[in-house]
Amino acid sequence: MLDALFKPKSVAIVGASNNPFSIGHIVMQNLIDHDFKGPIFPVNPKSKYIKSFKAYPSVSAIPDEVDLVNISIKNTIVPAVLEDCGQKGVKFAIVHTAGFKEVGEEGLVLEKQIVEIAHKYGMRIYGPNSQGIQNSDPEVSVYANFTFVPMSPGNISIVAQSGGVGETLKLHLYRIGLGIRMYSSFGNEADVSMNEIIDYYGQDEETKAIMAHIETLKDPAGFLEVASRVTQKKPILALKSGKTSEGVKAVASHTGSMIEQDTLADAIFEKAGVLRFHTQEEMIEAAAAFTNQPVPPGDRVCIVTNTGGPAIIAVDECIAAGLNLAELSPQTKDTLKQLVFQEAIVSNPVDVVATAGPEQYGGTVEALFDDPNIDSLLLVFVTAPFVDCEGIARKLGELGKTSPKPIVCQVITIEKWQEVIRLIRESGIPVYDFAEAAAKSLSAMTRYGAILRKGTPIYVEKKGECDKDKAGRILGNFSGKDMFLPQPDVFDILDSYGIPFVKTVKIKEKSELEPAAEKIGFPVVLKVDAKEIVHKTDSGGVKLNIKDITALLSEFEKMVEKFRVHKPNFILQKYEKDGKEVIIGAKKQSGIEPMIMFGLGGVFVETLKDVQFRLAPLTEDQAVEMMHSIKGYPILEGTRGEKGVDFNALVDILIRFSQLVLDFPEIDEFDLNPVLAFENRAVVVDARIKIKG
Amino acid sequence: MLDALFKPKSVAIVGASNNPFSIGHIVMQNLIDHDFKGPIFPVNPKSKYIKSFKAYPSVSAIPDEVDLVNISIKNTIVPAVLEDCGQKGVKFAIVHTAGFKEVGEEGLVLEKQIVEIAHKYGMRIYGPNSQGIQNSDPEVSVYANFTFVPMSPGNISIVAQSGGVGETLKLHLYRIGLGIRMYSSFGNEADVSMNEIIDYYGQDEETKAIMAHIETLKDPAGFLEVASRVTQKKPILALKSGKTSEGVKAVASHTGSMIEQDTLADAIFEKAGVLRFHTQEEMIEAAAAFTNQPVPPGDRVCIVTNTGGPAIIAVDECIAAGLNLAELSPQTKDTLKQLVFQEAIVSNPVDVVATAGPEQYGGTVEALFDDPNIDSLLLVFVTAPFVDCEGIARKLGELGKTSPKPIVCQVITIEKWQEVIRLIRESGIPVYDFAEAAAKSLSAMTRYGAILRKGTPIYVEKKGECDKDKAGRILGNFSGKDMFLPQPDVFDILDSYGIPFVKTVKIKEKSELEPAAEKIGFPVVLKVDAKEIVHKTDSGGVKLNIKDITALLSEFEKMVEKFRVHKPNFILQKYEKDGKEVIIGAKKQSGIEPMIMFGLGGVFVETLKDVQFRLAPLTEDQAVEMMHSIKGYPILEGTRGEKGVDFNALVDILIRFSQLVLDFPEIDEFDLNPVLAFENRAVVVDARIKIKG
Repeated sequence: MLDALFKPKSVAIVGASNNPFSIGHIVMQNLIDHDFKGPIFPVNPKSKYIKSFKAYPSVSAIPDEVDLVNISIKNTIVPAVLEDCGQKGVKFAIVHTAGFKEVGEEGLVLEKQIVEIAHKYGMRIYGPNSQGIQNSDPEVSVYANFTFVPMSPGNISIVAQSGGVGETLKLHLYRIGLGIRMYSSFGNEADVSMNEIIDYYGQDEETKAIMAHIETLKDPAGFLEVASRVTQKKPILALKSGKTSEGVKAVASHTGSMIEQDTLADAIFEKAGVLRFHTQEEMIEAAAAFTNQPVPPGDRVCIVTNTGGPAIIAVDECIAAGLNLAELSPQTKDTLKQLVFQEAIVSNPVDVVATAGPEQYGGTVEALFDDPNIDSLLLVFVTAPFVDCEGIARKLGELGKTSPKPIVCQVITIEKWQEVIRLIRESGIPVYDFAEAAAKSLSAMTRYGAILRKGTPIYVEKKGECDKDKAGRILGNFSGKDMFLPQPDVFDILDSYGIPFVKTVKIKEKSELEPAAEKIGFPVVLKVDAKEIVHKTDSGGVKLNIKDITALLSEFEKMVEKFRVHKPNFILQKYEKDGKEVIIGAKKQSGIEPMIMFGLGGVFVETLKDVQFRLAPLTEDQAVEMMHSIKGYPILEGTRGEKGVDFNALVDILIRFSQLVLDFPEIDEFDLNPVLAFENRAVVVDARIKIKG
Repeated sequence: MLDALFKPKSVAIVGASNNPFSIGHIVMQNLIDHDFKGPIFPVNPKSKYIKSFKAYPSVSAIPDEVDLVNISIKNTIVPAVLEDCGQKGVKFAIVHTAGFKEVGEEGLVLEKQIVEIAHKYGMRIYGPNSQGIQNSDPEVSVYANFTFVPMSPGNISIVAQSGGVGETLKLHLYRIGLGIRMYSSFGNEADVSMNEIIDYYGQDEETKAIMAHIETLKDPAGFLEVASRVTQKKPILALKSGKTSEGVKAVASHTGSMIEQDTLADAIFEKAGVLRFHTQEEMIEAAAAFTNQPVPPGDRVCIVTNTGGPAIIAVDECIAAGLNLAELSPQTKDTLKQLVFQEAIVSNPVDVVATAGPEQYGGTVEALFDDPNIDSLLLVFVTAPFVDCEGIARKLGELGKTSPKPIVCQVITIEKWQEVIRLIRESGIPVYDFAEAAAKSLSAMTRYGAILRKGTPIYVEKKGECDKDKAGRILGNFSGKDMFLPQPDVFDILDSYGIPFVKTVKIKEKSELEPAAEKIGFPVVLKVDAKEIVHKTDSGGVKLNIKDITALLSEFEKMVEKFRVHKPNFILQKYEKDGKEVIIGAKKQSGIEPMIMFGLGGVFVETLKDVQFRLAPLTEDQAVEMMHSIKGYPILEGTRGEKGVDFNALVDILIRFSQLVLDFPEIDEFDLNPVLAFENRAVVVDARIKIKG
């Protein structure tokens, strides 16, 4: 419960001073300038008054209750101040002071110490090395932060791991005339966490959209849990730094955190229904659309314009962003043809031409409201100097207020027509400078609509069909060890979870070969199996495509001879060919479910990196979507008239596989490589399990 | 020579009126408001005075010389007005009036008529259906355009096929405080062409960068020629609409032009050294960087920041945009360590921390000037309220004026520190709101640096080695026909240009098989060859991997029997395998050199569309670069320890191939599919030539 942080009844400022360049002064000034609704208590043993406010020598000397304390004194004095705060019954301490975890071992010790002190008193630490918080709720109006962007009420809440990025986000919202609801840049996250803050924003009625800037997820599982809940109520827009390996390194040096793969963030966002953005500006512009517009029920957009060129740019961007151009219903076309000028183009985009007045432009938009083929509207409007532009804007404003469909708008205009922008924005329609921004924002809303329609995924365990006990018994034989499992055990584990693999027989003696081959059917593959031989193929321990018993016996002799010192076992398998090679893999993650990989085999994985990652577990829909997402999907569907592979079989393997890795946390890495997918089945040809004790 | 258009000594306005919503009125007002340096002559037979100016009943009634006329009267009256203008000796007529080519056949006739009238008098038409021109040169200051963005002097010139897009570009430059040099939105391009305008901008000393918005290239060869020349002097930044097939359709319906592939535009831009952008905003922001900064000598950027998070975003964006992070020299590191605070991070990014003052921040930038490992600087600067921000800006401004290296800057600030932005911008350093914009703009400058260093490509014909006469004789046998050439002729043509192909022998009689097979060596391929059999493989006319003479004779019999009615010839070829499959293709283009395609065979071309297109001819460097540009390039280089293919052999084939298609315009389509590339050679296995009479 972060109420005393975001809605404090009173704030004390330890480190307040009359020096206008001090953090304490700046925070105090921000509180005053934004008309904080509770008392402000500057704390400074050296001053009697600060900025005309009575100053106190310590927090405990303050005669009234203190909810929140802002601390910006030297790092080594922080513990003593916190003891004092604790005794006073302070609820939250925002520690602006730096010089903790981010500077190394010594700082980390100090950081742990201050959290301990706080918890001893039931107090919470926000930071250290943090910027602070803001809440524009007129009943609170708290700006406990040393930054400079003025705060006005709005309904976008921001949480930013980097204060500099947070400030940039606030700044651009301010520039486009939008306020914020709450703001938070939490620094080292020693106690109050980003996940708690997002959860809190999620519960705040007035927050319509959440923007998050993330450098590293301290608690990825917690984030997944919180974000999955929140995104069912309101969108979370996220920007994740460290997209490139150089960026990842910079994050690690900035936050002192572990190096983290960007693919993990993608998988978490995907699973949680978080909308990821790749630039700050795109995120802000999309957030602007979410604040007042309904969520599109589908991806069919209609573009209305009074200038041709920018609408074409809008078309390109809508399509590139995954939207579709709506096909106007015949009835709509008839209505429009009655309405617009002769030169107008009644198609999509609808070009009402520059000479269109309020009746033509506004009437067109209104007519499109009724077309069931249209899910959303993108308007392009240049204030042509020869028409009644304010009239058009007034009409659009009226329509915007009651529109059953989401509308975004590019307006091409200048100061003298600012009233045009005001009138449109006032109705809740977001106004953009560029068609690209309007299209991308609409696409983000459409993506969110799809997330809402999907709802919370329900994971169905294949209970009866998966013999968890059997797999557990096999894995139990190796418990506590770090190793690759022997091949036959791997196949037994696959078998226990109903994952189909090529016909396989363990061979110890030469005499077992003939009956085994008979059972399997030629051609066969002979493989050596010994713990010491990890790279079987490279060391000559695999013989493919053996066509008859004579050849098999002879190959067996050769292998026995070759690997005599290892006293190996052998495996005989059916030699399968002509299927499509697929790779399925899993890697355990620290602090969160394992990541499942899917891709086409060979160069597609190794060179083209055409793979998809998702967090376990998987629903059937998610497994299907995952396969669809690789670029080489059409290869699985069949090119040049060949039949496609058995997708149901692959889905089944994916789900059983993800369940298996989830059931046994000792599985560190697990690869099915390759899986061969045929027209009416799919089988694992080779598999590898690495366990970690 | 477009001087009388962009630097008119006098302007007449046909259609001028006192109605403030008329185009004529608006153009006149724009000329007046921007203080045009010559006389303005309103023409309107119904008014004696317009806006206090004496009005004339016709252009010929004007007592002085008239360079330029703006016409905004009804389309059907335009011819008569032009006759009058011609007789008067007018040099250019800007026809704003719509209702020409863009409305269909009737309009096209009218459009042709007005050009004829103009040319009869040595007059030129600009438009019709055009917005107009502007030139901010203080000695001219002409705003002969009906748009609304105020004009101020600058050194970016704009040419925009869409007036709406052109206005958006002007508008955003205006918003970020940049002026323009010249502006032009040319409408239907009936006479004065975009290429002429770009050429004119290229010759204008004060134009430092050109921005072009293109929907369709009316004269692609002309564009290539002009742009190739201009980009050696100044950058051309281009935005091309119609990136998606939906966008292409919208362009076609907007401009009435043919449907055009986006790949052709890419190939033309690549060849001409034009920088393509994918959003209006990115193009404008890059243009801002080009106006005052030197071109980077290389791709190694150093980032300096006083706030961590935004710098990480800059890292990600720089890397994603193809830049590299510079490795600071040991000497630079020593210098910086003396200079900055202890908490600062002396690495790349250099984080001088938020408490850095002018000495630390400015000193750091100055120290980096001398580091030979650094080609460019990207600064991130937040105006921390507790330091002397104006002092830092002043220092950066001083450094910017004399910087030997290009600098771009993100400033995170607000109104009260606008002086900070002013000081930095004044020095020529572009200031951006977002790190992403700074990084992308720097990347564009770096790309342009590489274009300049490459210089004008020199195409060397493989003269002695290519027997043009022989190829010409073969093609001459089919002159005037539309058809696929017979297989043996295709191979003879390859031979004449020194393009290696698998050993091939024409077979008419059974008796020729044995000696031919002996010459070639088994295994061989037998193919049927008859004009009527186009899909040889599908109809059973190809037998691969024939291993001995008995099999060959038997397959021959079968094929003779099968195709008896066609009385076919046959081809015997060496059966090659295990090479890497490559496809090389060519397609004739209307109005420009043929496009050459390169890609990996099979699914890489068909499903993953991993192909590159370039215009013929190719230099060796261009051929190498083209191969490098496919995503599957590492496959050709060799994966998993295998050796790479013979790139020299592929380059040689590409160059001979492009020369061949260029030498013979009757070749409509030409495919080498597949070419097999081996470790030490590459050979064409199959080829197809389609000619068009």
